[in-house]
Amino acid sequence: MNIKDIAQLSGVGVSTVSRVLNNHSDVKLSTREKVLQIIEEYNYIPNNSARVLKQNNTKNIGLLVKGVFNPFFSEMINIIGSKVDSAGYTMILEQNDYNIYQDVDNVISFAKEKKLQGVICLGGNFIDIKDDSFASLNIPIVLTSVNTLSKKGKKTYSSVGIDDVKATYEVTKYLISLGHRDIALILGKDDDIGISWWRLNGYKNALNDSNIPLKDEYILIGEYESRRSYEVTKKLLLKNKNITAIFCLSDIMAIGAAKGIIDSGLKIGKDISLIGFDGMDYSEFYNPAITTVKQPKTLMAETSIKLLLDLIKNSIENQHILLNTELIERESCRRIK
Amino acid sequence: MNIKDIAQLSGVGVSTVSRVLNNHSDVKLSTREKVLQIIEEYNYIPNNSARVLKQNNTKNIGLLVKGVFNPFFSEMINIIGSKVDSAGYTMILEQNDYNIYQDVDNVISFAKEKKLQGVICLGGNFIDIKDDSFASLNIPIVLTSVNTLSKKGKKTYSSVGIDDVKATYEVTKYLISLGHRDIALILGKDDDIGISWWRLNGYKNALNDSNIPLKDEYILIGEYESRRSYEVTKKLLLKNKNITAIFCLSDIMAIGAAKGIIDSGLKIGKDISLIGFDGMDYSEFYNPAITTVKQPKTLMAETSIKLLLDLIKNSIENQHILLNTELIERESCRRIK
Repeated sequence: MNIKDIAQLSGVGVSTVSRVLNNHSDVKLSTREKVLQIIEEYNYIPNNSARVLKQNNTKNIGLLVKGVFNPFFSEMINIIGSKVDSAGYTMILEQNDYNIYQDVDNVISFAKEKKLQGVICLGGNFIDIKDDSFASLNIPIVLTSVNTLSKKGKKTYSSVGIDDVKATYEVTKYLISLGHRDIALILGKDDDIGISWWRLNGYKNALNDSNIPLKDEYILIGEYESRRSYEVTKKLLLKNKNITAIFCLSDIMAIGAAKGIIDSGLKIGKDISLIGFDGMDYSEFYNPAITTVKQPKTLMAETSIKLLLDLIKNSIENQHILLNTELIERESCRRIK
Repeated sequence: MNIKDIAQLSGVGVSTVSRVLNNHSDVKLSTREKVLQIIEEYNYIPNNSARVLKQNNTKNIGLLVKGVFNPFFSEMINIIGSKVDSAGYTMILEQNDYNIYQDVDNVISFAKEKKLQGVICLGGNFIDIKDDSFASLNIPIVLTSVNTLSKKGKKTYSSVGIDDVKATYEVTKYLISLGHRDIALILGKDDDIGISWWRLNGYKNALNDSNIPLKDEYILIGEYESRRSYEVTKKLLLKNKNITAIFCLSDIMAIGAAKGIIDSGLKIGKDISLIGFDGMDYSEFYNPAITTVKQPKTLMAETSIKLLLDLIKNSIENQHILLNTELIERESCRRIK
């Protein structure tokens, strides 16, 4: 049983069966249903590996996700998936957490193996991009919410993200405007160069601009975990009685810090102001609700796929887009003095 | 540049390069490093698609995940991944959320395309398993935490899960033992036959055994979302002043219900007892901490991969394993009267 048999049994051409198998939108609904019915009836398994190798024009768009189990990305993947679909392409999702190679190499081998027409990376470490990193690929690449410090090769790829320095600068300035001067910062990871480094700079710049001295003991590592953040918060509050505000660089860490404040016998909002980052549901439904920096997840996803499709179709120049974050004020912050 | 060139440049045989590329553990560390260095130096991209097609004995183990962005599965995937690795196999992870086929067909096409030696499914709908569903595959299949009502074909696959009826029976009995008689149940989805159906039965059986009449208005749908659960909880408490306990079938819904209780002017624990399900971090770090039913995620993952490896190596009989859940008592439940 091969694709020719399916075509004959369905009374259509081989190319139509191929278009159905590749989920193209240019097949009449009734034809699509007939072909799928024959496929099901004869229990035909299309061999994707063979198919991919034979095709020159795959209409495949790749989505390479780092930390595929990060809830932050799940909504974005759904949005990108549906836009890819309605544009007549097929989305191939791959996660690269178990890969031994660097992320630049991941993109290249993913694109070549699947004969992609374009690729979006959600997250990943692209610290070391060079001018010729993507030279062996002639398809558009969009890097979304990735870690990078490099200024090189910007003409060879596009990017979509937030301005991490600006976001943390504004939050720190907001806390200062409420009267806080002893503001602790809970970072994700020590070796998380890129995102953590930019965000730390935003915090430092805001303190500096307000003539508040930087204290090393106010900068902690929460490992992107509630438990670790809970522990460092309790230790911090035991040692430093002057702290009046804590800024956590993820909502999951803010929940741990919240419990740490409560278990230290202090009141969130009254004694200690608390701010998270990301805009996840669990910060909104916490008791009390936690102020957070909402990342524009939906817009970030929509911008990424629109940019990729434009790059594929119209050969526009590569672009580097920074989106705005939004401070969502809730019950966990108060003005002091 | 092909695998023979890499072998020659590395001074090893083609089969050694192949073993390195397939991540086998039976290659000396120094040899592995040398081969990887040559691969990097010559920017060699192994063509996985071609490789998979040529191989008869792939040493590939497949992991097919439904709802890949369910945080419940993320820890399990990491555990399975590392065990697959140390057993000398390569894990191929695929998510089937965007697939048009049924899950039984997903397993079959996944196994055939990737020439798998065994496959574990995390989640998925296997309601309609028939005696000959997996007849076209002669590799072991382990279904872990899946939805199924079928009693057929049990000799053709193995399964690992919890006893959903027993778990919800025990929670409901626990609330009854604390003096509660008006106990609301927040289910995930309406059409989520399988898991929700079993769990609803546990709740009904417990009420029945204690001669407490079942009230339809106490059974709600929370869509596995905090927000939906928040809304139905507020409506429930407005209409039904007799409710003294709410049991949510996931922790993410329990958080929404918690906020719903608070925003109804009631106190969690004192006025309304609350229990979640899963054992996620955010129930522990909530204020107050929420009692929950902990699923044995680690044991479930370890049991699944051990069972699969035993099935591959020793051709043992298929097994169907039910693991115990654990009630974690926290601050959200109190004895009444």
